[in-house]
Amino acid sequence: DHILLQHNRRTLEDSFTRSVNFYELMNQRRSVRFFSKEPVSEKVIENLIRTAGTAPSGAHTEPWQFVAVRDPDYKQKIREIVESEEEINYMKRMGSQWTNDLRALRTTHIKEYLTDAPWLVLVFKQVYTPLPDGRKRNNYYHEISTALSGGILLAAIQNAGLVTLTSTPMNCGPALKSLLGRPAHEKLLLLLPVGLPSATCTVPNIHRKKLNEILTVF
Amino acid sequence: DHILLQHNRRTLEDSFTRSVNFYELMNQRRSVRFFSKEPVSEKVIENLIRTAGTAPSGAHTEPWQFVAVRDPDYKQKIREIVESEEEINYMKRMGSQWTNDLRALRTTHIKEYLTDAPWLVLVFKQVYTPLPDGRKRNNYYHEISTALSGGILLAAIQNAGLVTLTSTPMNCGPALKSLLGRPAHEKLLLLLPVGLPSATCTVPNIHRKKLNEILTVF
Ligand SMILES: Cc1cc2nc3c(=O)[nH]c(=O)nc-3n(C[C@H](O)[C@H](O)[C@H](O)COP(=O)(O)O)c2cc1C
Ligand SMILES: Cc1cc2nc3c(=O)[nH]c(=O)nc-3n(C[C@H](O)[C@H](O)[C@H](O)COP(=O)(O)O)c2cc1C
Repeated sequence: DHILLQHNRRTLEDSFTRSVNFYELMNQRRSVRFFSKEPVSEKVIENLIRTAGTAPSGAHTEPWQFVAVRDPDYKQKIREIVESEEEINYMKRMGSQWTNDLRALRTTHIKEYLTDAPWLVLVFKQVYTPLPDGRKRNNYYHEISTALSGGILLAAIQNAGLVTLTSTPMNCGPALKSLLGRPAHEKLLLLLPVGLPSATCTVPNIHRKKLNEILTVF
Repeated sequence: DHILLQHNRRTLEDSFTRSVNFYELMNQRRSVRFFSKEPVSEKVIENLIRTAGTAPSGAHTEPWQFVAVRDPDYKQKIREIVESEEEINYMKRMGSQWTNDLRALRTTHIKEYLTDAPWLVLVFKQVYTPLPDGRKRNNYYHEISTALSGGILLAAIQNAGLVTLTSTPMNCGPALKSLLGRPAHEKLLLLLPVGLPSATCTVPNIHRKKLNEILTVF
């Protein structure tokens, strides 16, 4: 069953201008580690997740699940899980190269943003899908598909004037899964606090690679 | 070295409206397999890649490299590599479940879009970065970071009124790497034809999961 593609044609000028404007908007994105406690409406969070759900996926498996946490008790429990694992990561698990690479970012295992941010959005990938008859449908490319969806989510957050921190809490997956009652076939991919930056929010003064460092044209 | 975050505050209404509009724009995205031969300017492609380069990355490694191919001879060679591998994939490598899952999409190993589309954008992940002294810096989370960048790229393509097909050419990485002279530390993640749809372009009549199928709120 195939249908004609709906496509809104844009003029060359419009296409170019939009490409510049979107670059400028996205280039303002920074990973934020200091959040304001100001609330963000659930309707906006819903629209952000709807947008993430438009991502392509291998064989249209849509292998993603989003959990949005606003409840303060749950946020507190999530913070405790992440901080206790991160303390071990910083102390023992990570090699000296990793801690060195991270020094410039001045990150520690204390994560106030996990209780300050009005929302925590957890992104799970579905490694397989359980079928009604008990068999498992393997989800090809579940990690790439879910990360692509995560990239679209980051764009949606930035577009809405909100901020986030992209994080992949090391070794926290099982405890967070069990706290949030997620099933066996899901694995945590990303944990994104979403909200507004604190009034005094600072970010590392880092620079991005130039176009000629990331693009080759044939 | 830390600096104050530059943040353009939006009103609640503006934030909500933008979240709706961006959802509607992204929800029009479809994977396109029939391209027009109309050219797309290199300046627009550059802006799309610049936008992809704003993605977050583990420890700010920026572990991505984009190759944009417009040269007809290179496109033809890429098509030959992909078609010959895909023929084997469809015939031998993929299990019957995979071919079954793909039936609704009516895809085959013939990929005219690889020579019709004005641009092919190949996205490589950098598994490590070779250091001047010969050592290798491991790029943590290179696959997730590069796929997040790919998601932002998909958003940028859609935003500019262009179309693409997300694809991960199975087993074509080594041949494509050698054709394009990519170094040992890079691996192909995505191959994206970018351009405009053909006048008669059709797409599979598929539906997306509803919000309550992908979002749980606490
Ligand atoms: C990781 C990944 C790999 C894909 N590989 C192919 C592919 O090899 N060939 C193809 O025709 N489509 C491929 N697709 C596109 C999916 O089939 C498509 O996204 C899905 O059917 C949903 O349709 P939509 O993108 O139009 O919403 C791929 C998508 C993803 C995310
Ligand atoms: C996969 C991934 C994992 C990350 N993990 C962490 C993390 O655990 N803690 C943290 O503070 N930042 C984390 N970051 C954010 C990066 O440090 C940040 O993206 C990078 O320094 C570039 O800064 P920018 O996002 O402000 O451009 C992560 C980013 C990615 C993409």
